[in-house]
Amino acid sequence: MTYELYYWPSIQGRGEFIRLALEASGQAYKDVARDADGMAAMMRLMGNGMARPPFAPPFLKADGLLIAQAANILAYLGERHGLEPQDPQGRWFTRQLQLTLADLVVEAHDTHHPLGPNLYYEDQLDEAARRSEDFRTERLPKFLDYFESVLASNPDGPAHLVGTKLTYTDLSLFQALEGLSYAFPKAMSRVRKDYPKLFALHDRVASLPRIKAYLSSDRRIPFNEDGIFRHYDALDQ
Amino acid sequence: MTYELYYWPSIQGRGEFIRLALEASGQAYKDVARDADGMAAMMRLMGNGMARPPFAPPFLKADGLLIAQAANILAYLGERHGLEPQDPQGRWFTRQLQLTLADLVVEAHDTHHPLGPNLYYEDQLDEAARRSEDFRTERLPKFLDYFESVLASNPDGPAHLVGTKLTYTDLSLFQALEGLSYAFPKAMSRVRKDYPKLFALHDRVASLPRIKAYLSSDRRIPFNEDGIFRHYDALDQ
Repeated sequence: MTYELYYWPSIQGRGEFIRLALEASGQAYKDVARDADGMAAMMRLMGNGMARPPFAPPFLKADGLLIAQAANILAYLGERHGLEPQDPQGRWFTRQLQLTLADLVVEAHDTHHPLGPNLYYEDQLDEAARRSEDFRTERLPKFLDYFESVLASNPDGPAHLVGTKLTYTDLSLFQALEGLSYAFPKAMSRVRKDYPKLFALHDRVASLPRIKAYLSSDRRIPFNEDGIFRHYDALDQ
Repeated sequence: MTYELYYWPSIQGRGEFIRLALEASGQAYKDVARDADGMAAMMRLMGNGMARPPFAPPFLKADGLLIAQAANILAYLGERHGLEPQDPQGRWFTRQLQLTLADLVVEAHDTHHPLGPNLYYEDQLDEAARRSEDFRTERLPKFLDYFESVLASNPDGPAHLVGTKLTYTDLSLFQALEGLSYAFPKAMSRVRKDYPKLFALHDRVASLPRIKAYLSSDRRIPFNEDGIFRHYDALDQ
């Protein structure tokens, strides 16, 4: 079976968390909206009186199901492809961590769009600078402290966030660190030494053979200033 | 078994989505932080090198598990207490809708805190007014249109968001409409006629015997200006 992933074709965005899970578990998938006519196919699946419509991309077609919301898609893939622990405690905790990462992603996005998604960044420069300062000095350390403590307190050791095996949450943490380092290179290089376990996990994920191959392929869309993680010098002082 | 719910004791907030699920399914639970010494008990469960720590309230203690993130807690309760469909398609769609409601809740919160959670509302009055206008005119209709279309296209009829029975997502939609109507009474009364199925569901949930009893009890904390849904006249013009 070939999965069909639907996501905006020019950004990593929330689709990237799904791509990483599909790549790491070696699944065949089609990144539909990157093909000719793919955008039209994606738009047809949104709204129009269809039963069980998605609100927004990403969504995944598989086995007659259409599943949306990144954390939900990951839970689905995790169950099927061994990217989630099988014991209930580990499974609920993996899902909990994924939702906390999703919260971090929203806040990272809002640094450049504090007044909402409908205005351009250029229309909210001062507000973005204020929100970014709060993010860099208060929120970012709070989240990074938390994930470092999750690694440090994992009863199975600090190699993974949960249990002894790779989960989609490890992959998503890698992606969050990638994105934060792209958006806030100064802030992130200042704190790197404070989070040895986080960055060790990041580096391990980057060197997994399938992930390494993916990252150097043209399936990996480069970061850019249309995505969630954007680099603006003014927001990283 | 008595569930232990941990959440800030003076607001509905994200804890309210859990309270409604516990109440609607008739579960025994203790709202721990509302008891004397309860706040200290809650803070002890956050951080401190504990394995599998929560990032923030709400979290739920049950059967030796500690589960955080509202959508995750609801999935756990839904599975156990018949507040989720048992077929995979219905289950994944219920969880997807819950995450979309969570996105709406974040945006409703950010109307009064566009520059981040660490500044007071009074320090971001102009920005809050701008973000609220965008929310009222663009984002709110987009979300309400979506949920109305989900009801309209439910193959099992518009009485519920998913399937033929009450789910926690119906309860959460009720709570979102309650909160939005508290925060934006003018905006919501203007659009009420456009969403007959949404408000019919709201009214049905409000009249469920257990929910009705809960809403008139002192277990229901009134809305106030410390919570997620806050009423400021300036944000509802």
